[in-house]
Amino acid sequence: MSKKIMLAHGGGGRLSAELIDKHIVPRFANPILEAMGDSAKIQIEDKVAFFTTDSYVVKPLFFNGGDIGKLAVYGTVNDLLVAGANPIAISLSLIIEEGLEMDVLDKILDSVAIAAKDAGVKIVCGDTKTVDAGSADEIFINTAGVGEKMAGAELSFDRICPGDKIIVSGSLGDHGMTIMSHREGMKFESDLKSDCASVASVCKAAVETCGADVKFMRDPTRGGAATTLNEISVSASVDIEIEEAVLPIKDSVQAAADMLGFDVLEIANEGKVVIVVSADKAAKCLEACRATQAGAESAIIGTICEKNDEPIVELITRIGGRRVVQMPYGRELPRIC
Amino acid sequence: MSKKIMLAHGGGGRLSAELIDKHIVPRFANPILEAMGDSAKIQIEDKVAFFTTDSYVVKPLFFNGGDIGKLAVYGTVNDLLVAGANPIAISLSLIIEEGLEMDVLDKILDSVAIAAKDAGVKIVCGDTKTVDAGSADEIFINTAGVGEKMAGAELSFDRICPGDKIIVSGSLGDHGMTIMSHREGMKFESDLKSDCASVASVCKAAVETCGADVKFMRDPTRGGAATTLNEISVSASVDIEIEEAVLPIKDSVQAAADMLGFDVLEIANEGKVVIVVSADKAAKCLEACRATQAGAESAIIGTICEKNDEPIVELITRIGGRRVVQMPYGRELPRIC
Repeated sequence: MSKKIMLAHGGGGRLSAELIDKHIVPRFANPILEAMGDSAKIQIEDKVAFFTTDSYVVKPLFFNGGDIGKLAVYGTVNDLLVAGANPIAISLSLIIEEGLEMDVLDKILDSVAIAAKDAGVKIVCGDTKTVDAGSADEIFINTAGVGEKMAGAELSFDRICPGDKIIVSGSLGDHGMTIMSHREGMKFESDLKSDCASVASVCKAAVETCGADVKFMRDPTRGGAATTLNEISVSASVDIEIEEAVLPIKDSVQAAADMLGFDVLEIANEGKVVIVVSADKAAKCLEACRATQAGAESAIIGTICEKNDEPIVELITRIGGRRVVQMPYGRELPRIC
Repeated sequence: MSKKIMLAHGGGGRLSAELIDKHIVPRFANPILEAMGDSAKIQIEDKVAFFTTDSYVVKPLFFNGGDIGKLAVYGTVNDLLVAGANPIAISLSLIIEEGLEMDVLDKILDSVAIAAKDAGVKIVCGDTKTVDAGSADEIFINTAGVGEKMAGAELSFDRICPGDKIIVSGSLGDHGMTIMSHREGMKFESDLKSDCASVASVCKAAVETCGADVKFMRDPTRGGAATTLNEISVSASVDIEIEEAVLPIKDSVQAAADMLGFDVLEIANEGKVVIVVSADKAAKCLEACRATQAGAESAIIGTICEKNDEPIVELITRIGGRRVVQMPYGRELPRIC
């Protein structure tokens, strides 16, 4: 077999079959995938299933702390977890540019396999397309995920109310600033590392410990914490106050953001979760999150407040001033995930 | 709002929200999608769910009989149907190249909405990414689908046995030759029309009429009927004989294929299904398929035979000769779906 991807690898014929049988399926060995049906049969114990999807177009493909394969698994798995679902199965769909080195593809597929194993999720179906050189950028990955309800999870915007506390499960901006530093070829990039990881342990710890007192969870990916907090504010029709002094931000991330003129709150995270929890269970929830490896640096960063006029997110600065945290415009960081 | 897609439309901020809220969600209005959760909650009545995915990279985006949006819905819905599942919900994930005309996107989204409505399937979750100009080719779409078992469907390679008959639900090669003629700017293109459509009526008619006598179904997309028949032959460990004289092929498709040097059996279909049914129910199954609009031109094209040596698919030619129908290499038609 060629050492580069050719268009015929996506043609649905012998070369496609070879790619799938030799490079893809063996890495994700499980009977459901191996059945090679038009659809995968998965077992759902509950009558409600959770379903999500994301495409990944991150550039560069490999970065400190991860790569597009790892991201494609944890990104989708995390969307299930924060919705209060345990991931059962994911799909893996590849769009590959003609000429991609087979070694690069293999490395990405290895990474997908490791992340899927870590997340305890099976890859049960997939698709492989190829496009001519110049019609894509190396490889794009789509994963969709199916999960079932986590026992005790009762999450919705509607359940959020004034007084609730906001926990973030660790340092902000790590993923976005890592990608940006790679792209800019910046000197400080060695200090930066993507947080790309599953938030399973944190989400489960929070829900197991505090049950229905956990009101809402969301992973602050594209658009960062600023987007997530604004979405909560608008959808739950509440104001939000967060405190600058307690935001967990690494010095290297803050330095890189300052140098490039970014607001860390607008920078993507790929292994963090924002949790809204009732005030009286906040300390207990924080303790549970901190007891997990992924959530060791969790912090209570703010409070849900009664809405005055339009829903608004405000940052209480270190010197006691107030600054509106706006919904970012979106220009910040293309192809961050 | 700009009349072209900008990178910021995929940035996860305000412009992303505008695109999603104004252009995407209203077209697919349903409460599950509108909840805008990280995952969609869908109702599954059975303990087995069916799960599938496909990415669509077809070029050109619009062709006689369809477009990438229609294809993305029916392609995934058909993968559920041929597996013996009724589609419940699909996801819609877009990778858009910066600079795509908003009107083009809107037209594709309209087409997605019409096809989804026709297929009776809800779009419950999605994702929108943008990439810089030159890093994709206008738009790529991924859909994943979840379905639940069609009553009475008992489909698997294992159930296929010598004597079973092979039905195809209509003319072969329409989709692939249409795309190819567009791409080649050929004069005869007006005679060609993609068969892009749901195979729901045919699959349901077959299963409702013949139940477990329907052994297996598959839609002969990329790689055409040649790929599907070879997959059946290998996976069920049987030989297959098909008869050239009874293959439903339109004159215009055959003419275009002859002119361009293609074998129609290797050309993609997007609204057809190959059905393996027990010999004694074959006539009844054919009648049921023909009673549907999509399957009006269904034909019994061949027979499952005892395997002699390696599993093989053979074509009995009009003059009684035998030709091996090989698994295509895959070079035939890039970006056909």
